[in-house]
Amino acid sequence: MTTNARTLLTIITEASIESKLIHEIESLGAHGFTITEARGKGQRGVRNADWTTQTNIKIEIICTPDTATKISSHLQENYFQYYAMIMFTHEVSVLRANKF
Amino acid sequence: MTTNARTLLTIITEASIESKLIHEIESLGAHGFTITEARGKGQRGVRNADWTTQTNIKIEIICTPDTATKISSHLQENYFQYYAMIMFTHEVSVLRANKF
Amino acid sequence: MTTNARTLLTIITEASIESKLIHEIESLGAHGFTITEARGKGQRGVRNADWTTQTNIKIEIICTPDTATKISSHLQENYFQYYAMIMFTHEVSVLRANKF
Repeated sequence: MTTNARTLLTIITEASIESKLIHEIESLGAHGFTITEARGKGQRGVRNADWTTQTNIKIEIICTPDTATKISSHLQENYFQYYAMIMFTHEVSVLRANKF
Repeated sequence: MTTNARTLLTIITEASIESKLIHEIESLGAHGFTITEARGKGQRGVRNADWTTQTNIKIEIICTPDTATKISSHLQENYFQYYAMIMFTHEVSVLRANKF
Repeated sequence: MTTNARTLLTIITEASIESKLIHEIESLGAHGFTITEARGKGQRGVRNADWTTQTNIKIEIICTPDTATKISSHLQENYFQYYAMIMFTHEVSVLRANKF
């Protein structure tokens, strides 16, 4: 069984921007994504307001390291200042690497 | 606090095959699993159809590397061709390793 | 884009203790957390009863290795014996490390 290394990029953010985000993520090279409903608490960008009461989503994307960097740079530039958003990556082993 | 390395195997697939999958996963040596509801988009096996409108589930299993290989080989042989399914692994540190 | 290593601590446990847990996790130094609804099966502490029918939650916390150790030691001492709970960690790369 041959496996390949890919990056799992996780984005946790406000549900209200889901459609816009997904569109941009696909434009930047993601071949698929998984979304789960989440809730949580954190601190919000420059406004530092509580992030308690919002509906959040967790978006997970398996992609090449290059695509992960493209997506996270884009989100950092365009969303970090205005939306509650955290983002992290780690390496995973996948089968059928051509899908990602 | 002693921790041990185990494999976290994640399967994202169609909700319709949950019961069958769970039964097989347990037969192959998993001692437990966690399921969350998910939705997403990807490309589906040989048919390449859109994977947009289905209800998906994410199954997470912590197990030994051997069990992870057994499960993923089994799913690859029996499901990859017919169902929307992605699968990936990474290493995690666990407490109470005897449970996994 | 500068990233920093942090620990992602995942706790899967009974939904009934969510508020208590969250309060303790924050007291022990977590700056935020994400919760998703989950269901699953495993074996429960000393009672070894089935863990099938309960509603579970998955709590994910990104923090420093030190905070992760503090939280997991605390949960191990106070919850492992009485509640269905699994816990695992792995390293992730984050942006805006000052948030975690």
